[in-house]
Amino acid sequence: MIEEVLEEVLRRIKPGKEEREEMKRVAEEVMRRLGELTKELSIPVEIQLVGSAARDTWLSGNRELDVFILFPPSVKEEEMERIGLEIARKVSEDYEEMYAEHPYIRAKIGEWSVDIVPCFKIDDPSKRISAVDRTPFHNAYLKERIKGLEDEVLLLKQFMKGIGVYGAESKVQGFSGFLCELLILYYGSFLETLKAARKWRKGTRIDIEGHGNYDGRDPLIVIDPVDPKRNAAAAVSLDSMAKFVDAAREFLSNPSLKFFFPEKRVLSREEIKERMRERGTLTVLILWDAQGLEEIIYPQLRKAQESICSMLQRNGFRVLRSAVHYSQKPALLIELEVWKLPKIEKHLGPFFTQEVHAERFKKKHRIVYIENGRYVAERERKYTDARDALREEMKNCSTGRNLKNSSFKILSNEEILGVYDEFSEFLSEFFHARFQ
Amino acid sequence: MIEEVLEEVLRRIKPGKEEREEMKRVAEEVMRRLGELTKELSIPVEIQLVGSAARDTWLSGNRELDVFILFPPSVKEEEMERIGLEIARKVSEDYEEMYAEHPYIRAKIGEWSVDIVPCFKIDDPSKRISAVDRTPFHNAYLKERIKGLEDEVLLLKQFMKGIGVYGAESKVQGFSGFLCELLILYYGSFLETLKAARKWRKGTRIDIEGHGNYDGRDPLIVIDPVDPKRNAAAAVSLDSMAKFVDAAREFLSNPSLKFFFPEKRVLSREEIKERMRERGTLTVLILWDAQGLEEIIYPQLRKAQESICSMLQRNGFRVLRSAVHYSQKPALLIELEVWKLPKIEKHLGPFFTQEVHAERFKKKHRIVYIENGRYVAERERKYTDARDALREEMKNCSTGRNLKNSSFKILSNEEILGVYDEFSEFLSEFFHARFQ
Repeated sequence: MIEEVLEEVLRRIKPGKEEREEMKRVAEEVMRRLGELTKELSIPVEIQLVGSAARDTWLSGNRELDVFILFPPSVKEEEMERIGLEIARKVSEDYEEMYAEHPYIRAKIGEWSVDIVPCFKIDDPSKRISAVDRTPFHNAYLKERIKGLEDEVLLLKQFMKGIGVYGAESKVQGFSGFLCELLILYYGSFLETLKAARKWRKGTRIDIEGHGNYDGRDPLIVIDPVDPKRNAAAAVSLDSMAKFVDAAREFLSNPSLKFFFPEKRVLSREEIKERMRERGTLTVLILWDAQGLEEIIYPQLRKAQESICSMLQRNGFRVLRSAVHYSQKPALLIELEVWKLPKIEKHLGPFFTQEVHAERFKKKHRIVYIENGRYVAERERKYTDARDALREEMKNCSTGRNLKNSSFKILSNEEILGVYDEFSEFLSEFFHARFQ
Repeated sequence: MIEEVLEEVLRRIKPGKEEREEMKRVAEEVMRRLGELTKELSIPVEIQLVGSAARDTWLSGNRELDVFILFPPSVKEEEMERIGLEIARKVSEDYEEMYAEHPYIRAKIGEWSVDIVPCFKIDDPSKRISAVDRTPFHNAYLKERIKGLEDEVLLLKQFMKGIGVYGAESKVQGFSGFLCELLILYYGSFLETLKAARKWRKGTRIDIEGHGNYDGRDPLIVIDPVDPKRNAAAAVSLDSMAKFVDAAREFLSNPSLKFFFPEKRVLSREEIKERMRERGTLTVLILWDAQGLEEIIYPQLRKAQESICSMLQRNGFRVLRSAVHYSQKPALLIELEVWKLPKIEKHLGPFFTQEVHAERFKKKHRIVYIENGRYVAERERKYTDARDALREEMKNCSTGRNLKNSSFKILSNEEILGVYDEFSEFLSEFFHARFQ
């Protein structure tokens, strides 16, 4: 049964002969162009195809290549970047300039997207100059070792993708392709990885080379085989890890294609309205005007989420769930269990024996009585509606530079349906499960 | 300033010459009648005037006397009770039979109420047969010692009365008259008692005779000078103690007659309605049909209060305050901060690593997701309105026999005003302080 499922998955995700040849053709073309362009340089550079395409571990339909231009470390950083980009820009007329830790070029060649990345060729990846300088080492480490395990890597990647934890980017906080390859290398196969994951604990540590000296507190620790100080699973959040462990258990007892290819249903405006009604809660959508890279905005959104939810709780309201999203606009959804409160609020004071505190407390508050030996005051609540608290207190919540300086609006329940078109997927995911 | 206040208080509460003579006359009359009635008995009995009247520590207007008939311990208990009551019934034609630990007679003589109590004359009060047998020892202990301190006792009693903590009965859970006398004996005067109380702690221990071996955990411990195993302050609740400590501090810095003679304002129906509106809360009044002695009903009401309030909290509602009362009917008032909730409820499950629990949890609940590494289920809330929870769950709350077996009704806000006449004082006390 499991075997049949995996066979069917591979049939769907493994690049066919045609696709492989196309990839090869594009890669060779890019390498050839770059070879020509760098021939005349006075500096000796190397051109390398890296990433999953280089190791036959890319998923069918994924038309992305990574080509690195390696400079000797004697070259100055600015020189490396300047010359590297100059050359990269000439590979295709259709390109974008991108920026991660350093600038690089994303060239379009037909339907293929090729990242051309200048970097340094260094000796020791633990003494790297820049994060990208480590990539060729990863490639060198995996290239021979992963041979024969490519299908297992593909299965694991698609599984992660299907359950929504594939990718180390801030949006997903999940498992990178590189991490998937390391897990397959360590456990030997897709199924062995799943079987092992069932027993993962918070803080589980995998160290293939047995050389790790990483001492962070991440939920999952997979020591980078080329850099003992680095956790290749640092991006994996506790919830991504838990989702994977949970899915591993589920799949092993009930193997099914749906883990790899889940149905994604987009709910209609009417369906979302109906679910709001059924739940009987108040859902609030906060929309900021800020723009920026996902890698910048998502961490700010998560910070805002935590700060805003705890502000609401502090003011007596009760948060049921919340979620963040960024496509056109940074968005935070909060579902509230309690969003309206009476004017009056109870405020606990000192124990009756604390004379000085008691005196101060009684001077400060008008209505004071004693309950269980403690002074208790009644005072006017600052906000009786969670929406007012949001409007007034957002400025005091810690978010991040972009969100902080951005204007925002607050929509609730029916009002949210007014921006349905923009957020249909986000709202569908949030209201996915049917209550009742 | 303080002296003037105390003088004025004494002027109002100290029985005048006429009142004292009246008391003496009634007491002598009762003693004489009892003397005659017992003269013909074959058993040697003693007649004793005990209590505050016997020691000149009764408050003006308090027309109560305690007269004890002491039997030798050789008499059988039933004999003592039978003969004692038979005699006591003959003192006045107007009498009631009462019952505490043992039966006694409450005789009416003019405006005076005279408790005639048969008891044993024992040697050692720590080996008493019945609680009343201890009373003559208390009288004997205090009679000479309290001489000269009568005014101080009166002041303390009136102070306790004014701030609402006078009396050891279950309704008040406060300071008995006997305890007030002990405190005066120990501290020497009313003002010294107040000064000392400012520093009282939870568990403060006073042992006049230095012979105590009481090891209970009561908030205040005053060892009975005639029974080292007994706490004469056992009835004092933490809140009664705290109220007295608080009032002591307040009075010493701002002496005023209002501590002794507080204004008791009864709010009109309209005023109570207005306060409910201002507060914006929901107040619920639970009325039982049960009848019984205060000493039976009040403990049950307090038990019900705790059990019902925690049931409400367990179901997601939030209780602001509550209070109990018993005059015509046992009554429990509960003011709620949150009394309506959405249909949906969040239910925390196991951490993702607990495989067996996780499986069980997921089988049990339909909507399950992972949050902070824990499984979380959404389920239908049992009660979305606190009043429904009350109607359905009262039968599972631990109250006490009388309340348990009694029918009850639940009124809220405006409905409560429908029984205003019956509960005007209780409601006024509850809504006394003006919010806003």
